[in-house]
Amino acid sequence: MREDGVSVDATIDMDRWVCPRPLRDSPTIVMGHGGGGAMSGELIEHLFLPAFGAAADAGLGDSAVLDLGGVRVAFSTDSFVVKPLTFPGGSIGDLAVNGTVNDLAMSGARPMVLSTAFILEEGTALAEIARIAEAVGTAALAAEVKLVTGDTKVVDSGHGDGIYLNTAGIGLVGEGVDIRPQRARPGDVVIVSGDIGVHGVAVLSCREGLEFGTTVCSDTAPLHGLVAAMLDTGADIHTLRDPTRGGVAATLNEIARTAKVGVSLDERALPVPDAVRDACGLLGLDPLYVANEGKLIAFVDPADEYAVLAAMRAHPLGAKSVAIGVCVPEHPGMVVARTALGGTRVVDLPAGEQLPRIC
Amino acid sequence: MREDGVSVDATIDMDRWVCPRPLRDSPTIVMGHGGGGAMSGELIEHLFLPAFGAAADAGLGDSAVLDLGGVRVAFSTDSFVVKPLTFPGGSIGDLAVNGTVNDLAMSGARPMVLSTAFILEEGTALAEIARIAEAVGTAALAAEVKLVTGDTKVVDSGHGDGIYLNTAGIGLVGEGVDIRPQRARPGDVVIVSGDIGVHGVAVLSCREGLEFGTTVCSDTAPLHGLVAAMLDTGADIHTLRDPTRGGVAATLNEIARTAKVGVSLDERALPVPDAVRDACGLLGLDPLYVANEGKLIAFVDPADEYAVLAAMRAHPLGAKSVAIGVCVPEHPGMVVARTALGGTRVVDLPAGEQLPRIC
Repeated sequence: MREDGVSVDATIDMDRWVCPRPLRDSPTIVMGHGGGGAMSGELIEHLFLPAFGAAADAGLGDSAVLDLGGVRVAFSTDSFVVKPLTFPGGSIGDLAVNGTVNDLAMSGARPMVLSTAFILEEGTALAEIARIAEAVGTAALAAEVKLVTGDTKVVDSGHGDGIYLNTAGIGLVGEGVDIRPQRARPGDVVIVSGDIGVHGVAVLSCREGLEFGTTVCSDTAPLHGLVAAMLDTGADIHTLRDPTRGGVAATLNEIARTAKVGVSLDERALPVPDAVRDACGLLGLDPLYVANEGKLIAFVDPADEYAVLAAMRAHPLGAKSVAIGVCVPEHPGMVVARTALGGTRVVDLPAGEQLPRIC
Repeated sequence: MREDGVSVDATIDMDRWVCPRPLRDSPTIVMGHGGGGAMSGELIEHLFLPAFGAAADAGLGDSAVLDLGGVRVAFSTDSFVVKPLTFPGGSIGDLAVNGTVNDLAMSGARPMVLSTAFILEEGTALAEIARIAEAVGTAALAAEVKLVTGDTKVVDSGHGDGIYLNTAGIGLVGEGVDIRPQRARPGDVVIVSGDIGVHGVAVLSCREGLEFGTTVCSDTAPLHGLVAAMLDTGADIHTLRDPTRGGVAATLNEIARTAKVGVSLDERALPVPDAVRDACGLLGLDPLYVANEGKLIAFVDPADEYAVLAAMRAHPLGAKSVAIGVCVPEHPGMVVARTALGGTRVVDLPAGEQLPRIC
């Protein structure tokens, strides 16, 4: 409110803000801050949350569940800066729709409406924008969400990368549905809905011009239907999360830390397609850390394991669902994998990111 | 859904999409497409809406009013790319909060929650990001909205401009409130809530290093309190809009076109501060086309004119409210100004924009 005569100094006082210890290694933004790993977490915990102060609510998670006028809604947002804009299996348009739909679905919500906000770079071909907008429309129809409001901004050439695309979404959360990381508890069975590492390898192979014999296509897909099928079993699903940036490793670490539980992973059970394994071998990547855009991780009560797995396998997007581990009381906040050779290794939270601008 | 084996060609077929006639002059994005004028409108009408197809709903306006589980909510989004990030009177953080709060308020909604999505450029100082995030928090507190969910992406140096910031917001719309451009009708009095052209001049003067004797500070402010005071009168408010990009001229043209009515403006009644008039004279700008970030335009039933004006003037953000014209049955879709000399001139919808990246 500026009509009260308050004038704000237009110069930035760079000395006033004291960089907290975990951020002090790099006083400027580096690519790793966008990786969904430890550096991203530090930025939220030590910079955004203190700066937002009393206005911040609900921990600024991937999706917030709110009571709005007596109705339970989920609300989520994501910006997409993937490079290149189109890759085998999809485009930034598919990611922008499915990414926000999935964030809503991971709260158990039925996604209803999306907003779309484009930041276009001067000089981008209208035909390319139309192609991406068509992908947005097609993906929204497939995900049964309506595009109800939007915005378009243009930035000068050299200050963007063709198209950046933000979506925000609202979903309805049913009575009694309570799915969140805090509810993971020892004894829970950890399930993944199919092959891991596919999206990251698809984008990377396309970006680097690599060929792996067979083309790996992104797994981008809307998962709300799969979640609905899981909820229909009446099972007590404690936690759902889509392992995007930072892959399965980052997601499991985040849940373990939030719920203060340990996760014990059976490495032999991880569904890694041969093409992903080969590509990761060649590139020096670990499939556990590679992004997925059409998979979910579920923590379910052990009594419900078989009912949930059966429901997931009956759905086209969960046909390869498999239990990959259990939640344990030991080593809270840590993920430990039992290797094929019978040993164990700690699956760390990645610091930055292996693959920049994957979504 | 890619698990069905459908593979999408990763190359963009630039020939498939036929550029519609109004877009044909420039087959690529130019700065004018982001100006909120005719070119922005053409992009939405001829590119985004056809591309989105059946998934698009509610005309993709600034704000959508929806029924969600029996509750009426408004939903809106805006990305901010203002340059520089901080300017006299505010920053990108203030704009991002107040801009979305105001889009919601223009539907008569009470803003409740916001999402924040940052696109950060590699190399940006953390101190600068903290400063902007503090402005977001302060503005959100002042606007009585909670920041409930967010996202952070990082792009490589040379593909951004420090900080781009998207907000989306949800508000609650009261029973019987029906405020939208379509409801403007002949006889309506057109009111503006105070001095025009202030924000655009503040940003431009700062960007160009210009001095105009007195510093012009941005008018960025959250307008939902002013709107609530207007609604409390019980008046029939037909249309509300905040004249941001493209200024009062673009907003009035948009309403005139949407409602198929004419607008007759009294140029002498326009509240233009001396500093804005001087700066515009120097720069060759027309204050009618310069952006505002803390003003609203109202179309109200003539019977309610004095009650609404009294309520607005009693509010700190509407102290200088004044009637600037009337809605007429003549020249539907057009805005005509009666000049100080007794003549008339057509106030066109701007094509592109006078001032790029003003918000």
